[in-house]
Amino acid sequence: MTHPVSPLAPKTYVDMPPVRGVRMATAAAGIKYKGRTDVLMMVFDAPAAVAGVFTRSKCPSAPVDFCRQNLSGGVARAVVVNSGNANAFTGSKGRASTQMTAEAAAEAIGCSTREVFLASTGVIGEPLDATKFSGVLGDLATSATEDFWLEAAKAIMTTDTYPKVATATADIGGVPVRINGIAKGAGMIAPDMATMLSFVVTDADIAPSALQALLSAGVAPSFNSVTVDSDTSTSDTLLLFATGAAAGEGQVRIEDGGDPRLDSFRSALNTVLKNLALQVVRDGEGARKMVEVTVEGAENDAAAKRIALSIANSPLVKTAVAGEDANWGRVVMAVGKAGEHADRDRLSIWFGNVRVAFEGERDPSYDEAATTAVMEQEDIPIRVDLGIGLGRATVYTCDLTKAYVEINGDYRS
Amino acid sequence: MTHPVSPLAPKTYVDMPPVRGVRMATAAAGIKYKGRTDVLMMVFDAPAAVAGVFTRSKCPSAPVDFCRQNLSGGVARAVVVNSGNANAFTGSKGRASTQMTAEAAAEAIGCSTREVFLASTGVIGEPLDATKFSGVLGDLATSATEDFWLEAAKAIMTTDTYPKVATATADIGGVPVRINGIAKGAGMIAPDMATMLSFVVTDADIAPSALQALLSAGVAPSFNSVTVDSDTSTSDTLLLFATGAAAGEGQVRIEDGGDPRLDSFRSALNTVLKNLALQVVRDGEGARKMVEVTVEGAENDAAAKRIALSIANSPLVKTAVAGEDANWGRVVMAVGKAGEHADRDRLSIWFGNVRVAFEGERDPSYDEAATTAVMEQEDIPIRVDLGIGLGRATVYTCDLTKAYVEINGDYRS
Repeated sequence: MTHPVSPLAPKTYVDMPPVRGVRMATAAAGIKYKGRTDVLMMVFDAPAAVAGVFTRSKCPSAPVDFCRQNLSGGVARAVVVNSGNANAFTGSKGRASTQMTAEAAAEAIGCSTREVFLASTGVIGEPLDATKFSGVLGDLATSATEDFWLEAAKAIMTTDTYPKVATATADIGGVPVRINGIAKGAGMIAPDMATMLSFVVTDADIAPSALQALLSAGVAPSFNSVTVDSDTSTSDTLLLFATGAAAGEGQVRIEDGGDPRLDSFRSALNTVLKNLALQVVRDGEGARKMVEVTVEGAENDAAAKRIALSIANSPLVKTAVAGEDANWGRVVMAVGKAGEHADRDRLSIWFGNVRVAFEGERDPSYDEAATTAVMEQEDIPIRVDLGIGLGRATVYTCDLTKAYVEINGDYRS
Repeated sequence: MTHPVSPLAPKTYVDMPPVRGVRMATAAAGIKYKGRTDVLMMVFDAPAAVAGVFTRSKCPSAPVDFCRQNLSGGVARAVVVNSGNANAFTGSKGRASTQMTAEAAAEAIGCSTREVFLASTGVIGEPLDATKFSGVLGDLATSATEDFWLEAAKAIMTTDTYPKVATATADIGGVPVRINGIAKGAGMIAPDMATMLSFVVTDADIAPSALQALLSAGVAPSFNSVTVDSDTSTSDTLLLFATGAAAGEGQVRIEDGGDPRLDSFRSALNTVLKNLALQVVRDGEGARKMVEVTVEGAENDAAAKRIALSIANSPLVKTAVAGEDANWGRVVMAVGKAGEHADRDRLSIWFGNVRVAFEGERDPSYDEAATTAVMEQEDIPIRVDLGIGLGRATVYTCDLTKAYVEINGDYRS
């Protein structure tokens, strides 16, 4: 089933220039979908440094287990991603499938299976027949090309209605470097951890431990601050690769994540991560509106985030947004159920710039027309001030529409 | 807006006989609804013992605050309930409104405001104009009648599509006693606590502390085991009253909740609570199917309950049920995100009596047709065995349909 492109999709696609040291190719292996690509292979010309964050699910997929094992080596030569089947909850068959895929990729590249990274997305519980694509990896490795980012993003889509790409530049010690990323994800999106599949590649020369420090910090305000439906996938994988090609331009390798020469890079990386994470929310299944929930004045930042997520995950808040109904009482409800310290009589709430509630009751100058005008916007900012402390957090979500129910009522069939 | 009666509604209503010592009356005060009753007054002929459980929201409504204060007195002479406005997040106006209502009720009955209990349900954040009904309480007190339970249940409805009543009998030391209850609730339903409004009355003679012990224990497997949408109300109130009229038949007053003479009563009370709680789920907004989620083999009972609620609250599980799609992979997802100890490779799942997953993968003899037949039922049992320990819990929920989105997208307007 194909769904219409989200009205919140980017109006134009950015041009994705190559990143030196990585090439890509895709194939249509017919894993689940017909008439579209469903396998992506990324090939690194030389061993790349790698960092990763994964789902915190207690029932992770076979590829997540596989990547976690290989991450300790810190080196990547190839990535194989398939859509249409998550290879999750597939027992020993799942492990056999990752092994077969890794061996085929390693043979195609001429590397160790320890240097291969895998990700799968799609239905949970169906055995993944890796023979459907293991045979084409040799061809993919040969045909892989630098200028293929948008196609790569398309091959990893499931219920996504548009491919997600982002790019940025930075400099490290005066040498320009580039960061490109792709992502997929439209449902089963919630913190924590990285809440979908995303692959980010830079040509910078950065050691794995430094890369991991940058990624772990960068994921908090981006992928760990978005939720579509509060459901955390078994397969969430975010991998960051550094090909090191910029060393050829004289970039001195960075070994420490705290190195001040990383300032520009860190900022650019965070921009790419945030950009991709927001694209995931904007393609939330059935989404018609994007909601930015900011909680301030909480006891601390963690409490603020918990309250913000309680609001962002509330079906009643999300359906009210879908109905363009400024039902701020449901925001009060969601604050109250979060379990964090709150004082009803100090609570204030804004929809956009309209203060709807002030110190525990409806704002004396409450203006229904002005509030409704905010609700009619495509992007809706909701702000809550608890009036207690200095804790602050922002999370992003989308509305809950009939289309979400429709999409998820017949996803498998 | 009126919605069609839930297909899961009881096919017939039980006959609700009187409970000695309590009378009821209703009025149409036009608080929000037109052409229907929206105020209920219960009057106790003599001071009744009272016990209560309330929402755990950090932003409780004014009536919840009011009841909590009065509960310490342990004695009730009147209850006033209104629908159409929750009197929640209404600041000092809300407190003034509860005070005015309590004073009017106390004057009508000739009792102290400490013996009055209040509950309000409806929109949050709108000031409740208590003058709309405070003037009629005198008339209601006079006209109150014993045989009025179904009408009482109707007056407290909001988005409910049917009134909820239950009755049972028991004996205490050979003297027959009766327990009647009513409830309302259709959305914003989640543990903990008592997750809607419910008023239960018995003619037994039981001291307040014993009554509270019975209620606090009885609520765990009933009202604290149901969830419609994971949203906990600001107003949840469950009050249990004992008029003591059975003392006239020779029932010896029970002072201790652990008294063995309460065995029959406890069992009957638990039946009434469970019956009402399940009626709430079966009237879940937009519900077309009821889902019973049982988790066993967990580390302990608390872990089992947390996992069961993770399944029952998952939008992806609930939309799959709505679509009659046996997507058990989403059950795996929900187990994984619950955060409790789980071993993927020991996990087994049943839909009805059909085992769909066994020890970490799809059941070797998985039968799609048999599973689909289960999904087509009105009541769908989902069972998960974690294979780790002896922890066990059952919770009840309903599916997530387009009608839920519709109902909640325009509730306020």
